[in-house]
Amino acid sequence: MVEQIRKNFSSDNVVPACPAVMSALAAANADAAPAYGGDAWTARLDDVVADIFEHPVKVFPVATGTAANALALAALAPPYAAILCDESAHIAQSECAAPDFFTGGARLVTIPSEDGRMAPDALSYMLDRLPADDVHNPLPTALSLTQATEWGTVYPPARIAELTTRARSRNLAVHMDGARLANAIAHLGCSPSEATWKAGIDVLSLGMTKNGAMAAEAVVFFNPAHAEQFARRRKRSGHDWSKQRFLSAQVLACLEDDLWLNNARHANAMAQRLAGGLFRHPGSRMLYETQANEIFVLLPDRAIAHLRTAGFAFHNWDTPQGVDGTVIRLVTSYYTRIADVDALLETLSEI
Amino acid sequence: MVEQIRKNFSSDNVVPACPAVMSALAAANADAAPAYGGDAWTARLDDVVADIFEHPVKVFPVATGTAANALALAALAPPYAAILCDESAHIAQSECAAPDFFTGGARLVTIPSEDGRMAPDALSYMLDRLPADDVHNPLPTALSLTQATEWGTVYPPARIAELTTRARSRNLAVHMDGARLANAIAHLGCSPSEATWKAGIDVLSLGMTKNGAMAAEAVVFFNPAHAEQFARRRKRSGHDWSKQRFLSAQVLACLEDDLWLNNARHANAMAQRLAGGLFRHPGSRMLYETQANEIFVLLPDRAIAHLRTAGFAFHNWDTPQGVDGTVIRLVTSYYTRIADVDALLETLSEI
Amino acid sequence: MVEQIRKNFSSDNVVPACPAVMSALAAANADAAPAYGGDAWTARLDDVVADIFEHPVKVFPVATGTAANALALAALAPPYAAILCDESAHIAQSECAAPDFFTGGARLVTIPSEDGRMAPDALSYMLDRLPADDVHNPLPTALSLTQATEWGTVYPPARIAELTTRARSRNLAVHMDGARLANAIAHLGCSPSEATWKAGIDVLSLGMTKNGAMAAEAVVFFNPAHAEQFARRRKRSGHDWSKQRFLSAQVLACLEDDLWLNNARHANAMAQRLAGGLFRHPGSRMLYETQANEIFVLLPDRAIAHLRTAGFAFHNWDTPQGVDGTVIRLVTSYYTRIADVDALLETLSEI
Amino acid sequence: MVEQIRKNFSSDNVVPACPAVMSALAAANADAAPAYGGDAWTARLDDVVADIFEHPVKVFPVATGTAANALALAALAPPYAAILCDESAHIAQSECAAPDFFTGGARLVTIPSEDGRMAPDALSYMLDRLPADDVHNPLPTALSLTQATEWGTVYPPARIAELTTRARSRNLAVHMDGARLANAIAHLGCSPSEATWKAGIDVLSLGMTKNGAMAAEAVVFFNPAHAEQFARRRKRSGHDWSKQRFLSAQVLACLEDDLWLNNARHANAMAQRLAGGLFRHPGSRMLYETQANEIFVLLPDRAIAHLRTAGFAFHNWDTPQGVDGTVIRLVTSYYTRIADVDALLETLSEI
Repeated sequence: MVEQIRKNFSSDNVVPACPAVMSALAAANADAAPAYGGDAWTARLDDVVADIFEHPVKVFPVATGTAANALALAALAPPYAAILCDESAHIAQSECAAPDFFTGGARLVTIPSEDGRMAPDALSYMLDRLPADDVHNPLPTALSLTQATEWGTVYPPARIAELTTRARSRNLAVHMDGARLANAIAHLGCSPSEATWKAGIDVLSLGMTKNGAMAAEAVVFFNPAHAEQFARRRKRSGHDWSKQRFLSAQVLACLEDDLWLNNARHANAMAQRLAGGLFRHPGSRMLYETQANEIFVLLPDRAIAHLRTAGFAFHNWDTPQGVDGTVIRLVTSYYTRIADVDALLETLSEI
Repeated sequence: MVEQIRKNFSSDNVVPACPAVMSALAAANADAAPAYGGDAWTARLDDVVADIFEHPVKVFPVATGTAANALALAALAPPYAAILCDESAHIAQSECAAPDFFTGGARLVTIPSEDGRMAPDALSYMLDRLPADDVHNPLPTALSLTQATEWGTVYPPARIAELTTRARSRNLAVHMDGARLANAIAHLGCSPSEATWKAGIDVLSLGMTKNGAMAAEAVVFFNPAHAEQFARRRKRSGHDWSKQRFLSAQVLACLEDDLWLNNARHANAMAQRLAGGLFRHPGSRMLYETQANEIFVLLPDRAIAHLRTAGFAFHNWDTPQGVDGTVIRLVTSYYTRIADVDALLETLSEI
Repeated sequence: MVEQIRKNFSSDNVVPACPAVMSALAAANADAAPAYGGDAWTARLDDVVADIFEHPVKVFPVATGTAANALALAALAPPYAAILCDESAHIAQSECAAPDFFTGGARLVTIPSEDGRMAPDALSYMLDRLPADDVHNPLPTALSLTQATEWGTVYPPARIAELTTRARSRNLAVHMDGARLANAIAHLGCSPSEATWKAGIDVLSLGMTKNGAMAAEAVVFFNPAHAEQFARRRKRSGHDWSKQRFLSAQVLACLEDDLWLNNARHANAMAQRLAGGLFRHPGSRMLYETQANEIFVLLPDRAIAHLRTAGFAFHNWDTPQGVDGTVIRLVTSYYTRIADVDALLETLSEI
Repeated sequence: MVEQIRKNFSSDNVVPACPAVMSALAAANADAAPAYGGDAWTARLDDVVADIFEHPVKVFPVATGTAANALALAALAPPYAAILCDESAHIAQSECAAPDFFTGGARLVTIPSEDGRMAPDALSYMLDRLPADDVHNPLPTALSLTQATEWGTVYPPARIAELTTRARSRNLAVHMDGARLANAIAHLGCSPSEATWKAGIDVLSLGMTKNGAMAAEAVVFFNPAHAEQFARRRKRSGHDWSKQRFLSAQVLACLEDDLWLNNARHANAMAQRLAGGLFRHPGSRMLYETQANEIFVLLPDRAIAHLRTAGFAFHNWDTPQGVDGTVIRLVTSYYTRIADVDALLETLSEI
């Protein structure tokens, strides 16, 4: 049987959960189990994640990335705080001001960058404008970094370390939005520990949903002090599942046998293949280096129309003024196959 | 093969998801689908629920009952509001002040009752103490009723109607916490519409998780005006699943072919059987009439110890001072079998 | 010239600011002064209050009692907290849920009492129902006690100490709503320190407005750790006056030469005289012992009508059901004179 | 007697309350008066302001500009909202995220401008990026404009009208931060109505404190629908004075006989005189046109040092990188005299 070409490059959250996750859910459903995290799956989480990250951790599974980010930031930032992040950050652009809600009105302060990767000097400049002893401005207490970034680029760990060092010198704690951390690690070839706490990260939103889970993210605390009342914050925000084993089982399935990294490696490879083809297309312009699984490319409008007519799905993106053509975003995932990428490139080559 | 006796009567949320729900999840996982509710499952929700409730509705699936309740109440109650509810209400006792958080600081005003069912005169008395034109008190804008109640009792629809009429005369909207609405309907033998909007309910938290889902509740708006920015509130609280089909598919599976009601009828029947046996046990005292799937019974401490030793699981409950014995809660579900009930009763009879 | 009889017993906040306060405002207005608390009046506050309370303090003046209470509680109670207080407390009954707002949704848990003075065992009972390790309930972090109480009664310091000891054993900090602390101290004849930190109070709302100021209260921290970001909370709630000297000058004026205590002694004495006369009136019933400057008395409706006709002003209060007559509240202040009290009693005696 | 030269140009909030305000406070203090706005002064507010603005209004006095702004914005913006403002706005830069707190987490979206005056196209561009039907971004519901701006410039009413028209086409309501509206009106020579509701303003923070009051601002609603529960929001934020007459009396005193406008005209004239002299100083550079009572001027560091040595007070301001000298801010007020301005200029000329 000839498989249908998969033409949906809209996002890594349009794809199904991967088979290992579905099997894990079925296995967790075999019989009754204690509610609210008293189950055997949840009991293993801390140890499994600690092994992978080579550091003691407190792990809390939740169903969405917005919940993971906003709850993690609320653990770091009191209501009178400022949270610093790149202007492209998901928390700043795409979560309907969830951190503002969960913190009770802390202020997000965004810092411009060229490619989603914050410059250390830009961070220092902004910190200088938010003195701790001037009550006219909120108190900076948290820095949030996105790895891989929203533009598909990846911070080198040394750059992360430079940023967290400057943050810590002003007593900020550091959060990493790792919705696509697996893709970043796959790109860097470093260890999970090098990408996170060894570079100064205090708390991590470890994304699974975009990487093969049904609905599961893990909030990972490398510093237990920050986790102290996290369970209560999760409860009162409605993110404490009564049947929590079904969250924990997803997280475990993704982490087992490096599935999360293997899924990400595959997605990255598909993005490389796709980016290579797009780069060679006449009239294309790559906006950023493709380092993870997202591609932002400017294409002539005729080319875009042709792809859409052929059934390919993707999102248009903000296009700089005065430019011919339109920027589109293409996202690959564990679910993307070589044939799917090649089919898109072939279709593109028809014009 | 002889099946193991199921001995866990702790809660209806310790049991697995029922087979129809697991099948529905697998079916929804077949291929890519649009994210954030653009999928085919979510597209059907409004119509399916409207058919069952015989009224146009707006339906929003979320993963937990706390989220459903708190989001629904935030849609009815501005930050300067008072929300009235029974003192036993889940929102007052068991959700870590989630409504207070989601509303931005509205005040829950609790009203005492004998058995979890609010008395209309008690409601009126409290409303008289919260005048709309006195800024010293928050403005009552919402009434929340729990059906079935936290004590396992069920409101007759006429009592609901009397309460909602009084609430409406003061311009309050009415929410129903229907975590166990199916059990109430099964007990009443009325239609879903008679239990809800025909009795004056504006918005319903329709519980599925305790009744066979993995993690799914539906917020059902009978009045579309209240739903207007609900999607934004859901988003910014992290309850908008990117792969929303997996929530919607659970809700659809529960509603199909009356599964929700059949599951509840079974749970109620098991509770009746269990309550009957407990009632006949020497030294037992039933605290409330068993009308749904929860039983609160006072038993001699020796009896309770014997049950625990035999492996039965259940929660101790607040026991009135100066009474011999201890109150325990026993909960049945779709997953409870006659043999399980009889095994408990038989064990009890051994002393 | 014969002075007009003062007939307004509605509240201690209907009276003018006392002459010393007005003079202090005029003096503070002589010339330019640094803004936002950089002025000479604010600079003296900590020392002046420390001298009176015999303890190092951090003092923050604000304009209203609601601001003082809600800001102080927000410094003690994170959003996921429970704040325990008597059911009659001003924060529970008369501030439109301000603590709920300032804390970002902490839950007020009210404890019933006979006369506004919480019983230690009632506190312990409630704390037992709010375990720290159960995320279904908010975490108790603060106890708020009102001295003098809303019913005009006064806690003995030993009772305060018993309550704060029990609170501290569960890691709660303790706030005192001292809107009428001066009246309590005047009644007790103890020192300010004995009434507060020596009895275990961590932070005090020290009321001035009801006691002769125009609009000034002082939040007094006996534990500097709680004060750490108070200035930011005050700023972002709009309670940081640019011309703060005008708040500080009021507080200083009230504290100088024991004016606050002298004013309270006078108010109490007037209340005693009034209560004595009311007690002797046929058909009267005193609801509580008069220990401060508020009297709650049940009077025959004819008597009340006669007083109102004669021009006396006061508020009707909640009257128990099935009782003849109506409860009224009468409040004295520094502004009340013997002749005013006697005129009321004489008018009453006419029927 | 030779009067001392007044050398404090730090701010318009370092100066005393003007004599008319002090007299009004004394007059309001003559006797008892009903609490919480039941007094005769408050009763007149709506009519007096309506006369001046030629439009029916609802007026609520509060003590600080931060309270006025944040409360007004909370009346326009639900928690899931975006509030648009210029990046220089006081609500964005100097109020410790008060709007974020009062709204329960609405997001401020700042728009860059050259001189504090928002460009209509910049507004439209930002609105296009915040679609109403995309829940990933908060819903724009309010625009806030500052008049006079934080850079001492003044919007022509036609520019205000253009902005409010665009805002209204997207269903936004419009707030004006009029901390220095009097200065703007004095500069424009227009009527109060032309500067506000005729140009599309819905609610105004009418500043008095910087213009001669002790602590008083008026929130003025031109659209009564927005004012509906404002009194409750004010109460629960602690901004409802029990002795409210002392706020209302200040507002009335400022408005009587055009005192507010006369004070502003004087302040503006002093700023013109000062700006003229600074402009002529060698090495000076004016950053913005001086249209109200604030001057931002770049001066050689030697000149600044000389002024400070001579006792003049003012704030340093953000200075563009790579520029010789330092930017300072000089603020005039009703309290500034010609001799004070000339003394500063003369001192400056000494180098």
